[in-house]
Amino acid sequence: MDETNNWGRWGAADERGALNLLTPEVVIAAAGSVREGRVLSLSLPIKGSTSSPAPTTVPHLKGRPLPQHFMSVDGGDYAAGTRAIGAGLKMADDALIVTPHGTTTHMDALCHMWSGDSLYNGHPADRVRSYGATRCGIDKAGPVVARGVFFDIPKFRGVPHLAAGDRITAEDLEDCALEVRPGDVAVVRTGWPLAWYDSPEKYWSGQPGLSADAGRWLAERDVCMVASDNAAISGLNAHQGADESLEDDLHMLFLWRHGVYLAEMLWLEDLSASTRTDFLFLASPLAIDGGTGSPINPVAVL
Amino acid sequence: MDETNNWGRWGAADERGALNLLTPEVVIAAAGSVREGRVLSLSLPIKGSTSSPAPTTVPHLKGRPLPQHFMSVDGGDYAAGTRAIGAGLKMADDALIVTPHGTTTHMDALCHMWSGDSLYNGHPADRVRSYGATRCGIDKAGPVVARGVFFDIPKFRGVPHLAAGDRITAEDLEDCALEVRPGDVAVVRTGWPLAWYDSPEKYWSGQPGLSADAGRWLAERDVCMVASDNAAISGLNAHQGADESLEDDLHMLFLWRHGVYLAEMLWLEDLSASTRTDFLFLASPLAIDGGTGSPINPVAVL
Amino acid sequence: MDETNNWGRWGAADERGALNLLTPEVVIAAAGSVREGRVLSLSLPIKGSTSSPAPTTVPHLKGRPLPQHFMSVDGGDYAAGTRAIGAGLKMADDALIVTPHGTTTHMDALCHMWSGDSLYNGHPADRVRSYGATRCGIDKAGPVVARGVFFDIPKFRGVPHLAAGDRITAEDLEDCALEVRPGDVAVVRTGWPLAWYDSPEKYWSGQPGLSADAGRWLAERDVCMVASDNAAISGLNAHQGADESLEDDLHMLFLWRHGVYLAEMLWLEDLSASTRTDFLFLASPLAIDGGTGSPINPVAVL
Amino acid sequence: MDETNNWGRWGAADERGALNLLTPEVVIAAAGSVREGRVLSLSLPIKGSTSSPAPTTVPHLKGRPLPQHFMSVDGGDYAAGTRAIGAGLKMADDALIVTPHGTTTHMDALCHMWSGDSLYNGHPADRVRSYGATRCGIDKAGPVVARGVFFDIPKFRGVPHLAAGDRITAEDLEDCALEVRPGDVAVVRTGWPLAWYDSPEKYWSGQPGLSADAGRWLAERDVCMVASDNAAISGLNAHQGADESLEDDLHMLFLWRHGVYLAEMLWLEDLSASTRTDFLFLASPLAIDGGTGSPINPVAVL
Repeated sequence: MDETNNWGRWGAADERGALNLLTPEVVIAAAGSVREGRVLSLSLPIKGSTSSPAPTTVPHLKGRPLPQHFMSVDGGDYAAGTRAIGAGLKMADDALIVTPHGTTTHMDALCHMWSGDSLYNGHPADRVRSYGATRCGIDKAGPVVARGVFFDIPKFRGVPHLAAGDRITAEDLEDCALEVRPGDVAVVRTGWPLAWYDSPEKYWSGQPGLSADAGRWLAERDVCMVASDNAAISGLNAHQGADESLEDDLHMLFLWRHGVYLAEMLWLEDLSASTRTDFLFLASPLAIDGGTGSPINPVAVL
Repeated sequence: MDETNNWGRWGAADERGALNLLTPEVVIAAAGSVREGRVLSLSLPIKGSTSSPAPTTVPHLKGRPLPQHFMSVDGGDYAAGTRAIGAGLKMADDALIVTPHGTTTHMDALCHMWSGDSLYNGHPADRVRSYGATRCGIDKAGPVVARGVFFDIPKFRGVPHLAAGDRITAEDLEDCALEVRPGDVAVVRTGWPLAWYDSPEKYWSGQPGLSADAGRWLAERDVCMVASDNAAISGLNAHQGADESLEDDLHMLFLWRHGVYLAEMLWLEDLSASTRTDFLFLASPLAIDGGTGSPINPVAVL
Repeated sequence: MDETNNWGRWGAADERGALNLLTPEVVIAAAGSVREGRVLSLSLPIKGSTSSPAPTTVPHLKGRPLPQHFMSVDGGDYAAGTRAIGAGLKMADDALIVTPHGTTTHMDALCHMWSGDSLYNGHPADRVRSYGATRCGIDKAGPVVARGVFFDIPKFRGVPHLAAGDRITAEDLEDCALEVRPGDVAVVRTGWPLAWYDSPEKYWSGQPGLSADAGRWLAERDVCMVASDNAAISGLNAHQGADESLEDDLHMLFLWRHGVYLAEMLWLEDLSASTRTDFLFLASPLAIDGGTGSPINPVAVL
Repeated sequence: MDETNNWGRWGAADERGALNLLTPEVVIAAAGSVREGRVLSLSLPIKGSTSSPAPTTVPHLKGRPLPQHFMSVDGGDYAAGTRAIGAGLKMADDALIVTPHGTTTHMDALCHMWSGDSLYNGHPADRVRSYGATRCGIDKAGPVVARGVFFDIPKFRGVPHLAAGDRITAEDLEDCALEVRPGDVAVVRTGWPLAWYDSPEKYWSGQPGLSADAGRWLAERDVCMVASDNAAISGLNAHQGADESLEDDLHMLFLWRHGVYLAEMLWLEDLSASTRTDFLFLASPLAIDGGTGSPINPVAVL
């Protein structure tokens, strides 16, 4: 592996990056990691009741537009006298407005971040326009069907969750003594969503996350995706910003240099309660043409 | 199986219906159906460029509000002079407005349709309100990890796609000679999305779909979900309505009486091009609290 | 005037309430109050840049979904290479998502609040459904063209703005020594938006507003609308709630009992800087079929 | 008047264009045109019921995203058992999604269209970005309080409405024998919304509108705004495009060269039923920071 840049590894036209590692052999092996047949959702709930405080009860970055969920017809309408359709059919329908980054469990497209004038693999950044990204959009990713490898750092350290200032080092990952294979999804738990339930203020005081060295450690092992329960893979300061330089920025490292996908704001507490460190990992982003990411409900099949 | 109603089969409080069939054994067996390691997305694209005709280029029911996709910052902004963040980071961000029923590939929650005053399993319909459904919402479903069984009716009949007036009978399903096990997802192809590419008018002239008898045939075999590439599982007339009586209505039969989930508007052409009739089927609806459904990107792992 | 209820004053079918007071004579007299020819906007800005902190820089009630403004095509796209239309035309287009109550300058419809099973004038509340209100919606109001009468309480008291706990009494209004005629719009300044610019925390610590007695004083004088720069006409406590009983609640008094319209979250600082206490007042709510209100940009023509 | 370009007429920094013509004297004179005291709304209804066909029942350009209106709490919820707030308060709340151009009565900002790299008055077009236009946005316009002058062309020609191919000439305007003063709003009726009620197909078959010569005739007379009941001021062909060259394009002429505002998709049938050709005209766009336009409910005070 080129340690600084995987550009062009799969050819100059490649927009799929590390998901190319998901060869048939890798997928078959991933399916083979199903042993218990238990299925876990790794998603936070999307609470969008516009006239209620519900959306603010779910972990999110401050100032981001929260999901909104509207019922365009519901049981209340029938209780109020709306007539059933035809011989008695009643239905409920709804709409969702979602800005996934920073507000709910989601996956980043390779076009989400870059530096200079080029996206991942040299694709021109000026192809990311108001109509969506015609290069490296989430529609280029497709479903992620891979083996998940679980780095449960708080459990390893014997704490309920990491502290806001904690940064996970390469040694932390090494100490977990897990086999990481090309095409794996590294699932990294910080436990930070638990801080939300202490108080939103605590959640917003900063966030624990991966250090740059830990990021490089994962990139060197050719994971196809890094998924974490924090909001930015890296840690965040009290201003919700990352302190790393551009060189060490984890979005630059993963998305831009290596084409490694990111999934953020997962709920990993149920997974932590299991004793499993490998499993079948699934994430299937909506096929949003030119999207910068997608809300997802990732799955661990134990 | 009670032929007319599965209510209470898993207890009076049950809101999950036929997904209860996905026992660990069933999930393990489903994972075992992965043989080639090929991953297929079964989703239509979500094209939401508001100021372009893009959204109207994807199959959808007439008159429904199409998805809208907005970029809140993009490469064009940087081309126009927006400064990079910090030492050089640039990013794209977006928002999606989606009303999934009738507009894109989606999964129905059990609360989507009912008759009288009760949802599936007798849950009160007046709990489906503007804040979302507190009974039988899509958040109660969780991920679907199951064996898919593929009824490729047009291939069986030797036609590119069924005609608008065609109704798939129980005999058609029987003739496919496929083993259907409890907990399977029945994936039924009509080929109707191809009609869209002839012309929207043709697509809107009606839709082929399952007959009531075919629906009962599937329900009797205890599938957990029926997924099809048409818009309503049943056929539709030229007014985009179903001609079945309430007794024979397929949404009533599946969602309401048997708790069998529905997925509609899939793209099954790539699956049809394979020779596989069983595979690992995955659908992971967004965890929308009280949602009547969710857009999904279903997956077949061959 | 019936002091407790104006219901039926204009007939059992009336859905327009106090706007019926705007007779041709009243409108002509209102137009006659234009003397200087100066036009003032009385609106807060709608800042909706989704990926920026802009929306949070404008006064709003905590926890409400802020306006979102998206550009679906803009100058950045052309800078990035989008081709002009035809021989050289370029255009920008946008979309707005707005939930007016509590987030921006708006007008309430008579259907916005009620008690029991009836809206204003006995219209059944169960006609307010997911498809909108078929009784007393904002579409029933029509444009407000009236004489404005300005109660600039902070100026009268010699303070920059009222304190969070201040309640404006009937005596305060009386002391202003203004003539109030039937059909007038009472414009009441608290100065509270200035608190936002001290800090959002101060703005959210409570709000000054009209007392119940002051409300009755205005209702007795047959104003058609009360417009203020606070968020709820009445004062608010630190939980953003009103402390009045149902009997004294100002929304009940004005909207429900008397059919008097409310406009909230105005910007009255420029008006305060003038020396005028009467003027032509204009507010033209969007004709939203069945809406509970509308964002407005109210106008004073001095 | 410079016949080809008014740029810089009010100084290099000017972003307000022809609205500068609304001097105090002009505003006072406009108020003086109120004689009967009758108030007419000149707006189409905004029908946004997402799960109903309502939005499609209002004139709009084909393929544009229609307004969506959602109730986030309504009377149906209370009928279904939602508890009143405190001692008995009930409320309805809602949200609106609106993309005004081509879908409802609206006003264009000067940044809506341009050619080359400059907006009206040479302002750089690359300041129109995803966060909104920082030059020539609708927030720069402010309320329009002016004298309206009514060119009721179908009435003059003795037809219910113009035909799709009809173009209004300078002679047509001249023949109306109306006095046009600097700062007036020219209100031009085509009657085309009536075609919608014959059939949407008829409405979409093309649209009548102003010819380039008629546009120049109005621009020479220094109107501050042109308001019409068609969708684009100019006529449209069956593809919903204008046939004029860039030189003759009416959006270029009015918005870009002369800073004259446009209001489109008005409802002028009630105004036509009156015998008035001059009146007080009001339009108060929402103060959308950087917006390309705003939905409006324009008013004629007769």
